[in-house]
Order: sequence, then structure tokens, then C-alpha cells
Amino acid sequence: MSTSLFKRYATKVDNTLARQDFDHDPPELYAPIDYVLKLGGKRLRPALCLAACELYGGELEEAMLPAVGLELFHNFSLVHDDIMDRADKRRGKPTVHTKWDQNRALLTGDALPVQAYQSLSKVKTPLLPRVMKVFNQTAMELCEGQQLDINFETGQPATEQEYLEMITLKTAVLLGCSLRVGAIIGGATPSQAEHLYQFGLAAGQAFQVQDDWLDAFGDQQKVGKQAGGDILQDKQPLLVIYARQLDPDGWKALREQALQGEEKVAAYTRFFHESGARKQAEQRREALLEEAHKELKAAGGSDDDIREHLAQFATWLARRDR
Amino acid sequence: MSTSLFKRYATKVDNTLARQDFDHDPPELYAPIDYVLKLGGKRLRPALCLAACELYGGELEEAMLPAVGLELFHNFSLVHDDIMDRADKRRGKPTVHTKWDQNRALLTGDALPVQAYQSLSKVKTPLLPRVMKVFNQTAMELCEGQQLDINFETGQPATEQEYLEMITLKTAVLLGCSLRVGAIIGGATPSQAEHLYQFGLAAGQAFQVQDDWLDAFGDQQKVGKQAGGDILQDKQPLLVIYARQLDPDGWKALREQALQGEEKVAAYTRFFHESGARKQAEQRREALLEEAHKELKAAGGSDDDIREHLAQFATWLARRDR
Repeated sequence: MSTSLFKRYATKVDNTLARQDFDHDPPELYAPIDYVLKLGGKRLRPALCLAACELYGGELEEAMLPAVGLELFHNFSLVHDDIMDRADKRRGKPTVHTKWDQNRALLTGDALPVQAYQSLSKVKTPLLPRVMKVFNQTAMELCEGQQLDINFETGQPATEQEYLEMITLKTAVLLGCSLRVGAIIGGATPSQAEHLYQFGLAAGQAFQVQDDWLDAFGDQQKVGKQAGGDILQDKQPLLVIYARQLDPDGWKALREQALQGEEKVAAYTRFFHESGARKQAEQRREALLEEAHKELKAAGGSDDDIREHLAQFATWLARRDR
Repeated sequence: MSTSLFKRYATKVDNTLARQDFDHDPPELYAPIDYVLKLGGKRLRPALCLAACELYGGELEEAMLPAVGLELFHNFSLVHDDIMDRADKRRGKPTVHTKWDQNRALLTGDALPVQAYQSLSKVKTPLLPRVMKVFNQTAMELCEGQQLDINFETGQPATEQEYLEMITLKTAVLLGCSLRVGAIIGGATPSQAEHLYQFGLAAGQAFQVQDDWLDAFGDQQKVGKQAGGDILQDKQPLLVIYARQLDPDGWKALREQALQGEEKVAAYTRFFHESGARKQAEQRREALLEEAHKELKAAGGSDDDIREHLAQFATWLARRDR
């Protein structure tokens, strides 16, 4: 990550999580929750919540438990997504349904949102209705995004607009929500909180576009996972959507070759480049980043240093090489 | 059910549910939610919430959406429990994971609690913190109860106390919570709300004890499911726990016979009767019912008619023959 501020936030979040007591009965329920939370992660969502709170001059401590709630909810979605995707590993460790079994993972994922709501409810009482409203809407959108993602993998060729809607619901809204909850706690006006939310949406979309880009053009050593995974699994990243639009005949011919393995990855990557899909994805990513910076400016706030960190963070999300 | 009041409440709840708009995108997410809610059911939890509100002179309409939230949460637990139990049917219709697939049922169950929280958040703003606190605690206890139930089916012989803890968390706390939420909305004092909650716990425990009793001694025609299901599946209903305590040698000898099918059901049922387990379960049920009536009296309230309906309802839960 680009900024040390976010690492400091992540450490504070980890310390708060470490103080949560999961030594409860029945251990069969609480041990997997503890396990998931100790797998680590960048704690991006709570970090954004804390940054937003401080941007408007709020007290960090007042945002800490709600911020932890956002991380708990994010972890719920990972546990259940891993069941749906039959994923064996998460952050290099066995997923809950692999380490225990599916029923255990199902129940772990059922309990985490409840703990998230418990933690989010620890905002100052007058703020609770606004925070609940924002969070409930986001949680529902996350479910919609997960369904759209399933549809994406099994369905008809998608458009750019459908792709953007899917990544917005699946990824960007929780980043936006984290910022908005922090902004509310920090004392932002509704208009400021809305602009900061839109900043989160645009930055989250840029993050996901870059994720697709890295799959094809990233340095495998740095990215840390197999290059061309999306290609080999016949997913529909933005590059495929653009390539199909820019050169339909070339795309059809490429598909008909029915290539496999490294040869397939190399041919598709070349096609993304030659068709102009790569360039179009990069342009889209930069446009989203520009939009994010514009929204951040409009979001105001009293702490210029934090705003600068948030700006750098968005740039890192969009242009990261790993 | 014993009282027409609860049927009137259930009809109002059904009407409110019917007005909820599930005609949203993506239909793949909202259609199963709509399906589950249209499977029907007695709407006991929202009915208890509405009754509690009116017991203290509250306006029915102010409790309606929170009451619907309790029903939505109950339905979430059914959908995920059905996955865990690999149950094919629910209320005579295919379960969600049978009609669609497991991922669909997983996501349906993830979305229902969010909709529950949305609906519960529609209480008057000053009441929201109390309602959230009560509900969050109950939701966590439900997860614990589900885990204890899984442990029960796979674990060591259990004690009466472990059995009561399991049925309390798995079934009774949500009945108690429904009453408490209604009491809070209706304007009960904290002490009144606590007594009404305890009424719900005791009535819920009596309900579950009777459920076990009916499995062995119910009229199969009336109960509407195969008699001795618990026996055939080697579950640990209260009757088994008592029989094992009252006559350990007899129980051991019976187990060693390794009987099957109807012969097994007949022999176990006879043993429950002769060992005194049947009588002990009936005494426990009646003691719980008495406790429920005592708590209801202590819960006060301004509407004697509703209190009488609640008393009859508890009696029906404990002594129903179907």
C-alpha cells in the first residue's frame, strides 16, 4: 500500500479485533470465527472508515467498533463466497469449509454478520438510524452483486455497463459504505458524506478494473497468483468485454481455436493488446481514478493530510502492480 | 391453534408480506426469497410481537414491520438449516436448495437476515438501540443453538440441562425476543418486558418438549409426519435422556438389540413408558407451562383479553396434539 497511515489504521483494527473475546461456548462455533479473523488481510474497509471519521475531525475511537463491524461483514462474505466457489485456500491458508466442513462454514458465515451488526450498533445513539440505513442497503447490494457475479460466470456475453454494475455491487459499495459510515461518525454533512461515498465507489471500480488488468498483464512474481486465471476459467473480465466489442470477428476466430493452458493465455493476452482492449481498460481505469479524485475534492473535510492520504490510496488502488 | 386472535395477526402479517416488493433485479436472488415467504407458516413470531405490543396498549401498526422482520429472520434460519440437514421438503414443498441449488439457497439465506434488519429498523428512532441490542443477542444465540443441535446429533450422551440449553437457544429465544420487541414498542417497562421474555422462553421450551413427546406418543394422523422419526434417526430427544437416566441397564439392553423400523419404534416407545421417561417428560412440560403462566402474570399489561389469549396460546403450545 502507498501510505503508512493506512497501515497504522490496520494495526489499530487488528489490536481491537485481538481484544474481542471469542473464547465462548460452543467452541465449535467461535473457533472458526476466530480463525477467519486471524487470517489477516489489509483491513481496507475499517481503515477507510477511520480515515473518513478523522477527515471531518471526528474521534478515532468513536469509529473503531463500527469500523470493526465492516471488517466482520466483509469476512462473512468471504467465508460464504469460498463455499460457493469451492475455494480451498484464502490468504494461503485452508478455507473454513476445507479446514472443518461445509456446515461449519455455513454457520460461521451466518454468525459473522450478527457480530458485524453488534459492532456497528456501537455508534452514538443519535447516529444509529442513519448508520443502520446505509449499512442495510449496502448489505443487500452485496447479495445482489454476488448473484450478478454468479450470473456472469454462467450467462450470456455481458456489456461494459453490466460489468460495472456487477463490480460496483460486489466490491465498490462496501468501500463506499465504509467511508460513509466514518463520515457520519466524524460529523460530515449529508452532501459531504455522499461525495465521499461516490469517491469510494469510483476508487473501488478502478480497483476491480485493475484487478482484471493485472490478471492478464501483471508481473506474475508480484501479483502472486497464476497469470491468466480469468482467461483459463473463461471468465468475463472487462478485457474480454472490450475485445469482443472492438473486434468481434477476431474474437470469434480466437474462441474457435479452443486453445489450452499457457498457449491460450499468451494468445488471449496478445489479442487484448492488439484489439485495443488493453488500452480501453487502461483509459477506463484512469477515468474512474479521475472521477474518484474529483469526488474526494468535493467531499471537503478539515484534515488536508488525511485527504491527501485518501487521494494517494485511490491512486494506489487503480495503479497497483500487485 | 387455540385462539382466533393469533390467526387474525397471522393474516395481517401475510398481507404485509404480500405488499413487500420482491420484483427486483436480479430475479435469481429475489425469486427464492419470494418463494420461501409464500410457503406460509403460522407466523407465530410476528403474532407474538403484535400481541405483546397490544398487551401494553401500543399501536399494532407500529409493531408490524419489526414483526415482519422477526418472520424474515426465522425464515433465514429455516433455509440454511435445510441445507445443513439436507432436507428435501419444507411445508410440503421443495426446499430452496432442492428447487434451485445450494448456492442459491446459501445466498437466499444470506439476504433474508439483511431484509430482517431492514424491517426491524423501522421502529421509532428512540427505540432502535434497545431493539437492536435485544435482537442482535438473540440472533447470536440462535447460531449457538444451531451449533449445539449439530453437536447433539453427533456427540456424547447429553444431560437434561444440555438439552434444555439447546432447545432454549435454538427455539425459545426467538419466541422470547419477539415478545420483548413487541413489549418495547408497546411501551412496557424493562421489568415487564423481561417477564414477558421469560414467558416466551418457558412456553418455547414446553413447545419443544411436547414436540419430542408427540414424536413418540402423538397420533400419527394428527401430527402429520412419521411417528418415531427421532427414534429411527437415533436422535437424543428428552425421552431418551430421561429413559437412559431412569433405567441405564434397560436402555443398554434395548440398544444392544439393534432393532430396526417399526419394531424399533414400538420397543423404544414402550420403554419410554415403562421406564417412567414419558411421565417425567410430561411433568417437565407441565412445570414449564406453569412457569410460563407465572411469568405472564408478572408481565402485567393493560389488556386482559390479550393476556388471556397469550395464556391460552402457551397452553396450546405445551399440550397440542399435532
